[in-house]
Amino acid sequence: MRIGGLEAGGTKMVCAIGDEQGNIMEKKIIPTGTPEDTMPQVIDFYRGKEIRTLGIGCFGPVDLNKNSDTYGYIRQTTKLPWINYDIVGNMKKELQIPIGFDTDVNGAVLGEAVWGAAKGLDNAIYITVGTGIGVGVYIGKRLVHGLMHPEAGHVLLNRHPDDHYKGHCPYHANCAEGLAAGPAVEERWGRKAMELADREEVWEMEAYYISQAIADYIFAYSPEKIILGGGIMHQKQLYDKIRKKTSELLNGYIAREEILNGMENYIVEPLLGDEAGIKGALCLGTLAV
Amino acid sequence: MRIGGLEAGGTKMVCAIGDEQGNIMEKKIIPTGTPEDTMPQVIDFYRGKEIRTLGIGCFGPVDLNKNSDTYGYIRQTTKLPWINYDIVGNMKKELQIPIGFDTDVNGAVLGEAVWGAAKGLDNAIYITVGTGIGVGVYIGKRLVHGLMHPEAGHVLLNRHPDDHYKGHCPYHANCAEGLAAGPAVEERWGRKAMELADREEVWEMEAYYISQAIADYIFAYSPEKIILGGGIMHQKQLYDKIRKKTSELLNGYIAREEILNGMENYIVEPLLGDEAGIKGALCLGTLAV
Repeated sequence: MRIGGLEAGGTKMVCAIGDEQGNIMEKKIIPTGTPEDTMPQVIDFYRGKEIRTLGIGCFGPVDLNKNSDTYGYIRQTTKLPWINYDIVGNMKKELQIPIGFDTDVNGAVLGEAVWGAAKGLDNAIYITVGTGIGVGVYIGKRLVHGLMHPEAGHVLLNRHPDDHYKGHCPYHANCAEGLAAGPAVEERWGRKAMELADREEVWEMEAYYISQAIADYIFAYSPEKIILGGGIMHQKQLYDKIRKKTSELLNGYIAREEILNGMENYIVEPLLGDEAGIKGALCLGTLAV
Repeated sequence: MRIGGLEAGGTKMVCAIGDEQGNIMEKKIIPTGTPEDTMPQVIDFYRGKEIRTLGIGCFGPVDLNKNSDTYGYIRQTTKLPWINYDIVGNMKKELQIPIGFDTDVNGAVLGEAVWGAAKGLDNAIYITVGTGIGVGVYIGKRLVHGLMHPEAGHVLLNRHPDDHYKGHCPYHANCAEGLAAGPAVEERWGRKAMELADREEVWEMEAYYISQAIADYIFAYSPEKIILGGGIMHQKQLYDKIRKKTSELLNGYIAREEILNGMENYIVEPLLGDEAGIKGALCLGTLAV
């Protein structure tokens, strides 16, 4: 069965055709402009491809409440032209197939739970640290929705004593996204993350922030696995620093083997790698009815 | 149908007989000593009462994993005589009836979801601020379990600039429980909470801490309702202070009516009042099979 997947991001739209095993047969990247520029190209990609369903993992906030008049809409985003754009309604009108819809990070955690690092588990979270910080939450084998959906990249952190950077989030002076996502790293240190690879203090501070967020997620969700990806995590030296600092913050309180023994198999890389997002979208497509 | 409920707390055991509508016909309080002293009295209470099932809402951490060898055990608690006590196994042996088992706060949020302030909702959390801080989490109409269960009373907070108290949690220098539960209030100010009722600065600081925790819970869970109870919340002046400070911390980011309009119907008192715990235990009993 051929399935479509769309990873709708703020900078690019990743369009793919795949199957129920998570194989990708075809992929195309379209830069994200306005809905009027971008969406006709996206829709054209899927035309005539004989897909049975489509899954969309979308940047947020989005309306996931099927009883709402604005189900399938993008809401109050900082990407202004997309506010109140009905992405599900418009694609359904054009393609006339069932569409599965969720946040990009919820898609990614689902993909990892079905095909990746959290396969077979009941509970897991997927954290992406990139242009923002997003957290996909899978509990009791289901994706978490609520009043909206988790926005756990905005949990509030303690500032590093040596950090005098003002923060990058327009809403919160000291949230994880504002202090530790890519744009914050770049603005604080005056260079792109990849050009800072050998600057020890950069990654110490980054681990200081990400580990606080992860400690809070462990207290809040009690996940069986934490999958940590995104552009910033291409700095592989971060993983061990984050495991060590998270362990110090928990300080033995969560008395489980998985956590007490160094967390090498607890805080892990996405098994789907940088394809977690698009494969997650495909996976949302497999569930569409 | 007659159902038993047991709210197993660190200072007292509340034993009750009730029905499926949450009515309580009989109640007895037994002080919590060692398992050897306390449990025979608890079991005696239920004997001959013709209850069909029993629900236990228990202080944690507890093992809720039905596939585990230690399912129904109390684990690594600070109440040392209770470590590894098999509360479900022992009561089942004596009473020979189905037992529903969860944390005290998960019981309470379930009770509130079935009979109380979160009736009909899909998602809610119940926060108790008392001798500790506990959070019961109900998502997609189910109680949240994971590697263990949520321990969200330990989320990490920013200290108030005027607070020089060391904190009361033996594990974490700046977690919510250590800075804002009853023992912290008492130790910081040198008096019991109820004797501090007219000290404005006490409740400003308390609201400063509780609102940070609530902001994190909103980001993490996206609950449809937040039920806030426990002994410290008998200081009713706290509710409005907490709503106001939570709103300042969120700063408009969660653009939903429930949150933008003062949160009077969003952060609420338990409708079951101080019986949320024992009624929650009863409710766990109604689900026991």
